[in-house]
Amino acid sequence: MPNIAIVPAPASVTELPGDGFTLGAQSSISATGDSAEQLSAAAAVGEYLGELLRPRTGFELAVNPLGADAAAPGIRLVIDDSAAPGYSLHADADGITVTAASAEGLFSGVQTLRQLFPARIEAALDGSTRVSDDVEWTTPAVQIEDAPRFAYRGAMLDVARNVFSVAAVKRYIDDIALLKLNVLHLHLTDDQGWRLQIDSWPRLTEIGASTSVLGGGGFYTKADYTEIVDYAASRFITLVPEIDLPGHTNAALASYPELNIGGVATEPYRGVEVGFSTVDTTADATWRFVEDVVRELAEITPGPYIHLGGDESLQLSSAEFSAFVSRASEIGAASGKTVIGWHEMGQSRELAPGTIGQYWDFVTPRADAAPHTLSFVEQGGQVIMSPSDVSYLDMHYPDTDRLGQLWADGPTSVEEAYSWEPTAIVTGLDEAAILGVEAPVWTETLDGIDDVEFMVFPRLAPIAEIAWSPAPAGVPGAAPDAATRSFAEFSPRLAAFVERLDALGVRYHRSPELSRR
Amino acid sequence: MPNIAIVPAPASVTELPGDGFTLGAQSSISATGDSAEQLSAAAAVGEYLGELLRPRTGFELAVNPLGADAAAPGIRLVIDDSAAPGYSLHADADGITVTAASAEGLFSGVQTLRQLFPARIEAALDGSTRVSDDVEWTTPAVQIEDAPRFAYRGAMLDVARNVFSVAAVKRYIDDIALLKLNVLHLHLTDDQGWRLQIDSWPRLTEIGASTSVLGGGGFYTKADYTEIVDYAASRFITLVPEIDLPGHTNAALASYPELNIGGVATEPYRGVEVGFSTVDTTADATWRFVEDVVRELAEITPGPYIHLGGDESLQLSSAEFSAFVSRASEIGAASGKTVIGWHEMGQSRELAPGTIGQYWDFVTPRADAAPHTLSFVEQGGQVIMSPSDVSYLDMHYPDTDRLGQLWADGPTSVEEAYSWEPTAIVTGLDEAAILGVEAPVWTETLDGIDDVEFMVFPRLAPIAEIAWSPAPAGVPGAAPDAATRSFAEFSPRLAAFVERLDALGVRYHRSPELSRR
Repeated sequence: MPNIAIVPAPASVTELPGDGFTLGAQSSISATGDSAEQLSAAAAVGEYLGELLRPRTGFELAVNPLGADAAAPGIRLVIDDSAAPGYSLHADADGITVTAASAEGLFSGVQTLRQLFPARIEAALDGSTRVSDDVEWTTPAVQIEDAPRFAYRGAMLDVARNVFSVAAVKRYIDDIALLKLNVLHLHLTDDQGWRLQIDSWPRLTEIGASTSVLGGGGFYTKADYTEIVDYAASRFITLVPEIDLPGHTNAALASYPELNIGGVATEPYRGVEVGFSTVDTTADATWRFVEDVVRELAEITPGPYIHLGGDESLQLSSAEFSAFVSRASEIGAASGKTVIGWHEMGQSRELAPGTIGQYWDFVTPRADAAPHTLSFVEQGGQVIMSPSDVSYLDMHYPDTDRLGQLWADGPTSVEEAYSWEPTAIVTGLDEAAILGVEAPVWTETLDGIDDVEFMVFPRLAPIAEIAWSPAPAGVPGAAPDAATRSFAEFSPRLAAFVERLDALGVRYHRSPELSRR
Repeated sequence: MPNIAIVPAPASVTELPGDGFTLGAQSSISATGDSAEQLSAAAAVGEYLGELLRPRTGFELAVNPLGADAAAPGIRLVIDDSAAPGYSLHADADGITVTAASAEGLFSGVQTLRQLFPARIEAALDGSTRVSDDVEWTTPAVQIEDAPRFAYRGAMLDVARNVFSVAAVKRYIDDIALLKLNVLHLHLTDDQGWRLQIDSWPRLTEIGASTSVLGGGGFYTKADYTEIVDYAASRFITLVPEIDLPGHTNAALASYPELNIGGVATEPYRGVEVGFSTVDTTADATWRFVEDVVRELAEITPGPYIHLGGDESLQLSSAEFSAFVSRASEIGAASGKTVIGWHEMGQSRELAPGTIGQYWDFVTPRADAAPHTLSFVEQGGQVIMSPSDVSYLDMHYPDTDRLGQLWADGPTSVEEAYSWEPTAIVTGLDEAAILGVEAPVWTETLDGIDDVEFMVFPRLAPIAEIAWSPAPAGVPGAAPDAATRSFAEFSPRLAAFVERLDALGVRYHRSPELSRR
């Protein structure tokens, strides 16, 4: 077992001489900060850590927001204005100190801290795990300096094709927080279902929410949505809501005839085809609809982004499509939010300035995917990289077709999910033009969060490492001593990571690519 | 490993001398019957069996509805008017013959037949299982005579507290078919959600379906409902829909003010308390509501039963409650269906004749549970036994509190789920008065079918055996040579059963009570 096995890999890990820290019944969690606000924020991160560590250890782990006991052996969470970006972590026999300039940095440090303890420290204390009394909860002695490579590190969950409870989404938020992801993109609408209450267009949920691929319907009330937003915020995760336009809209088209070319409502749809639906881009009703939906969505979305789709619009001419997304992006920007669109939206040269593109073509771009993607940068925006043949985590695993699909260039192995580089896909798209990396999971075949976890783990861990860890050797701007990204090096860390999933009760695919430890 | 390990235990199992049957690439499934209709029905059961056995074996297993190849080694499914109730099964080196007087009997026989083959014959052929080329698919040589003890063998799924996709319900139907259960009771409405489209009262789903305990909403359209009914019928399972009245109605009360005492709609509810809601039993609107819902429900329900609840009505006086359930039962009966109600409904002495009671008090009845239950029999009906302290499968397991609740007299062990006798609970309720046995699973804490499977398996297997297998020694009417029900005898068969769940990918709790084989 490697002594230190952290996913995603920190920027710098230095093993220290001497013993590490042993958590004991007398240990406390102290929080310090330069202001009352920082103190309170650090204490909240400490409370989160306490909730992780208390059940299995049985220790009290009181959170001391004054930091007065800082001399006692324990965990010290420090917010310090002068700290470097990211966090630093020092662990030795006297305790563990995590220092960051912000609560978000501390929270990232806590995700590393978790992984320094044996995985079973996070097992539920429900009597199902045998507990030996002589367990020692000891970390290695280590100094870590760490900061994220990309600002946007996302996971997308498709809650349109099938229905997921609020509790399921919260569980997914906890799952992705462990990997230092900081964005949850919810794909809220598609042909098969409209999943968000919109007061001014109630039939969107009365009719548009009544279907799903696997049968039955459902939607989130605004109270549900806010509950998700708030829970994500408590994990320093920004919610990015997506309303997919002008295609992927059958659920809306079935709800309101006036959105349709020809003015006749479509039938509700439960199949898995794409590209067949579009709103009537010339209808006044369509623009009232877009304005109302964007306004109501922006009102309940504290984060900076709203995603307006733009993918696979196959029923419109290029000119019609460009005109639509241009106007839609302006409506989005007027709501005070930065618009994100799938890369096809870059066909328009008249997007709201700063619109963000999300690339979902393959690692080797086809057709116009590259120029459409560069178009966002040329219009003052950045790009999120989600190459579908390596980061769409609903693709089959190579060794099982139990769940998922195949269309994105066949199955995706764990090694393939790890073996790509965001700056090496679209020529001319350099590090500064890339806002971040996101792994979507589409749910046509997935029923509930267990199925999602099966598809996503372990492959989300490689994606998170690409998003967080330093640029590898060979990438322009990489550190002079940067290592080459190596699956052989990653693999034992991944094996340690899935031990933690086992302890947490998170489902994952026991892929033959997981090396034994 | 016991050679023959079938759950639920057949009435009679005789090991035969000589070899059993080995399924091979040349094996076929032949179907015979006394009429074209029977031939077609037998062939449909054969096709179901073929779908189970083909993926892992890779054999063609053609279904021959003419029975012309009956001489060839293979599986023969025979419908014969003169056959005894239930089915008989004969397996030797020449083949396996299942004989029954009906397709339903054949289907029961096929569930036994599955369990004669090694469990791994049902594993998905998805590359995730290692296949050795020398596997022989051989059964023991055996003669089995079998018929169910009780006509009604049910499982109840609460789809009101949380939302389950149609696909999830279908999976549960397949799960329970393996145990020869023949009723799926869907608890469609409760305080936290109304889950069925009712055209004449659309706000029931527009508002009443928008909540669930774990967040998010959802409901079944009539098309969804019919899809479930039809799938259940293909497994010889009758769907029993429940509309819970007059309590457990907050979702309806939040949708329509006129159903409320005082005429003001309640707030939607996501908590887990019970007993606080009631419709206004004196309002004309309430009776229009009951008549409309019952009429629409009966129209889409081909089975003989509708369940009208009646439990935990704590806001009405006994007289008010009795008057309500009396009139509701008459409305149900007028729809052409036999009404089922929880045992409290027996407070009324003016139920529609033949109304069925469902007992959910403890194995040792408290308060008025026994007289209320006997009341159904006195009014010409029968009783379904669901004692909550042994058959409510959402109760905690003794060794984990990960999911479920505790209120029904604490946790329920696998042995407790096995160690009760339906005729020994309510004094005076004899074998003939008991229509059957049902195991409910309430879903306040359960998110998706994986959570349901975890709570239900392995404990549903004991309940199914109580419902199907012959009365044990000591029960009036038991066979003279009947054995005593013994967990020590059951336990190795249960261990064999969960091996099949492993092969099928059905989740279950790896209880320490599961003996190793």
